[in-house]
Amino acid sequence: MPRNAFYAQSGGVTAVINATAAGVIETAAQHPDSIGKVLAGRNGIIGALTEDLIDTSVESSQDIAALKHTPSGAFGSCRYKLKSIDESRAEYERLIEVFKAHDIGYFFYNGGGDSSDTAHKVSQIGEALGYPIICVGIPKTVDNDLPVTDTCPGFGSVAKYVAVSIREAAFDVASMALTSTKVFIMEVMGRHAGWIAAAGGLAAEHEGDAPHIILLPEVTFDEERFIARVKETVEGKGYCAIVVSEGVRNADGQFLSDAGIRDAFGHAQLGGVAPVIAGLVKDRLGYKYHWAVADYLQRAARHIASQVDVDQAYALGKAAVEMAVAGRNAVIPVIVRKQDDPYVWEIGEASLADVANVEKTVPAEYISNDGFGITDACRRYLRPLIQGEAYPPYENGLPRYVRLKNAAVPKRLAETFELK
Amino acid sequence: MPRNAFYAQSGGVTAVINATAAGVIETAAQHPDSIGKVLAGRNGIIGALTEDLIDTSVESSQDIAALKHTPSGAFGSCRYKLKSIDESRAEYERLIEVFKAHDIGYFFYNGGGDSSDTAHKVSQIGEALGYPIICVGIPKTVDNDLPVTDTCPGFGSVAKYVAVSIREAAFDVASMALTSTKVFIMEVMGRHAGWIAAAGGLAAEHEGDAPHIILLPEVTFDEERFIARVKETVEGKGYCAIVVSEGVRNADGQFLSDAGIRDAFGHAQLGGVAPVIAGLVKDRLGYKYHWAVADYLQRAARHIASQVDVDQAYALGKAAVEMAVAGRNAVIPVIVRKQDDPYVWEIGEASLADVANVEKTVPAEYISNDGFGITDACRRYLRPLIQGEAYPPYENGLPRYVRLKNAAVPKRLAETFELK
Repeated sequence: MPRNAFYAQSGGVTAVINATAAGVIETAAQHPDSIGKVLAGRNGIIGALTEDLIDTSVESSQDIAALKHTPSGAFGSCRYKLKSIDESRAEYERLIEVFKAHDIGYFFYNGGGDSSDTAHKVSQIGEALGYPIICVGIPKTVDNDLPVTDTCPGFGSVAKYVAVSIREAAFDVASMALTSTKVFIMEVMGRHAGWIAAAGGLAAEHEGDAPHIILLPEVTFDEERFIARVKETVEGKGYCAIVVSEGVRNADGQFLSDAGIRDAFGHAQLGGVAPVIAGLVKDRLGYKYHWAVADYLQRAARHIASQVDVDQAYALGKAAVEMAVAGRNAVIPVIVRKQDDPYVWEIGEASLADVANVEKTVPAEYISNDGFGITDACRRYLRPLIQGEAYPPYENGLPRYVRLKNAAVPKRLAETFELK
Repeated sequence: MPRNAFYAQSGGVTAVINATAAGVIETAAQHPDSIGKVLAGRNGIIGALTEDLIDTSVESSQDIAALKHTPSGAFGSCRYKLKSIDESRAEYERLIEVFKAHDIGYFFYNGGGDSSDTAHKVSQIGEALGYPIICVGIPKTVDNDLPVTDTCPGFGSVAKYVAVSIREAAFDVASMALTSTKVFIMEVMGRHAGWIAAAGGLAAEHEGDAPHIILLPEVTFDEERFIARVKETVEGKGYCAIVVSEGVRNADGQFLSDAGIRDAFGHAQLGGVAPVIAGLVKDRLGYKYHWAVADYLQRAARHIASQVDVDQAYALGKAAVEMAVAGRNAVIPVIVRKQDDPYVWEIGEASLADVANVEKTVPAEYISNDGFGITDACRRYLRPLIQGEAYPPYENGLPRYVRLKNAAVPKRLAETFELK
């Protein structure tokens, strides 16, 4: 007897997480003996706790296919972290009630490190609370900070956006620098891992190309060395293009800019380090500056998504379903790199326990000795991930992104659940 | 006997000003009886004053053609405004010396309103200082604030970038709003004219679509009405996406954010109104917010350029040369709209005097009654300008933009010229 599957998107969304959703839904349909309907959580795991499930079977096959070119989380995502079973037994018991009520035998959790932790906890329900469920994680995070996997869906597209954008802006600045802006600063995402900022370095293919300085969270910010490098660059090249990670910290471990707001996982909500850097440049050197903060534009930029990223996102969704159908529990499909150039990759399998709560930062061998750039080894790693332009279809000059019906599955439980 | 042509890029560069350069250079080559070489000013008019001329004839035809897909100013641009002949006779006399020394009989000045003013002044040299020269302006400005012409090259591509970006970011925010960001603010360019911010409104094709609020410099910022609208939008739709022009001012006429730096034309250098708006939202409503400042990314975004914009940019360069060859002085080719849908346009001719120093802002009939959005008439005007995706070629996952040789023409004058 087939059982239904639950699919949820978790944490910050990306340009390609919906491609993974398409991979899950289309592949599940190919296994009618094992999987009935794919029910999606409205706003992620919150949808499971509140019994707010979406019936994906009422969507047209065209709309499901259109998820492959639609950014954001089509079913809604959330920042909500389950505690351990011991700490929050009520949440797990509620999950089981909802799963039972809707005959859910498969749990697909599409997220980053925190989400892998949640998925791992749910995978233990079977043993701990006596409910048989197969739990498979699916990697996703623009931060690229998951261990084991070669890369994470969402990252390749952000990387491409950042490399393209800094190249374009630097061309602009170079052509105006004599009488206008001499220092341009582009702030990108990356709380603790500098992968996104590092990807900006791909724009520099020849000696002297922008970006001239990359500020990574892995390298402690040293004002004097930074100012000296900016001065040297402007004097030598006429301008200086900088990519700065939102997570850059000073010698005291303080973020250079911290809005003071923390999200549900206790992470600081950052933003606005670019103007801090710009202010420094102005005060210390007096150069005319401009700065940009890409913020959500970068992770939503489906219009310039990497084809490799879209392909991997879909393949991981597909593989997750195949692993589930094969009876694998507490696992997560990952990308395994076989070769750099041309890039050859395949899907591998990892344990959720190995992926959960481990943050992969940019290693020392990927950072240039001066701390302001990336090495050739880093380029070899990053370059394959931005290959190919997966353009969405356009209508009226704008990308045609799909909005699903997202019809609710009728509730079967009398009790509601209060989120804490 | 053919005479040489001088071509200069002026003011802020765009994603398509080099397409205009290609139009000039390729068309000039078709008129060998009239035009010898096209000599470009290195860094715009400064190159003429300092006798720093670039010989475009040594570039390959492939590289000149590649200008059509390369953003920025290939020969360098500048912010440098000539005073009137009476005020600064030395500058005009120097221009004539350089033009004479290099047998320049045609002057093409590719810029915005200030540049049209400069071009108009140069067009008077013939009469005032007895040097025969044909002077033709070519419109360019992302701000879209020139009168007479239907639109200005550079604007359509920024408009497309902004509409695409706010659509993508709003999809992202909508899918996370339950537990994360509820208000997203995207700051775009536009000092005094809100065309770029207005273009963000194209992303809203159906009732309730983002952006929900557009803040234009044409509408005085009213904090209470704004806060009320944000609250109503978040309560009704779950989130609120805002596009704000850098030039938004309060009832006292003060820019909400002013970095205090002024450029050579006396314009305030702005940037950073998005965090000001975000701070307001946080203080008054307590909503979680995110903000982006697109800055140069928007005007350099050749990767998502409008095909209509690229076509018009090229056509105007071509038309300028044809006007010059026909002996027209003190004129500027403009875009004449014949029909909205499908968009039909042709090249017309205007007097430089009519274009110089007149700023075309967003008219009242294009702004919704509440001041927070655009009207259907505005959509009918804007929509044609973002049609078509003029993708550049890619290599290694990145757009392949050309860098010209930019070989200097040997100097023929003994005297140098000191810029003031």
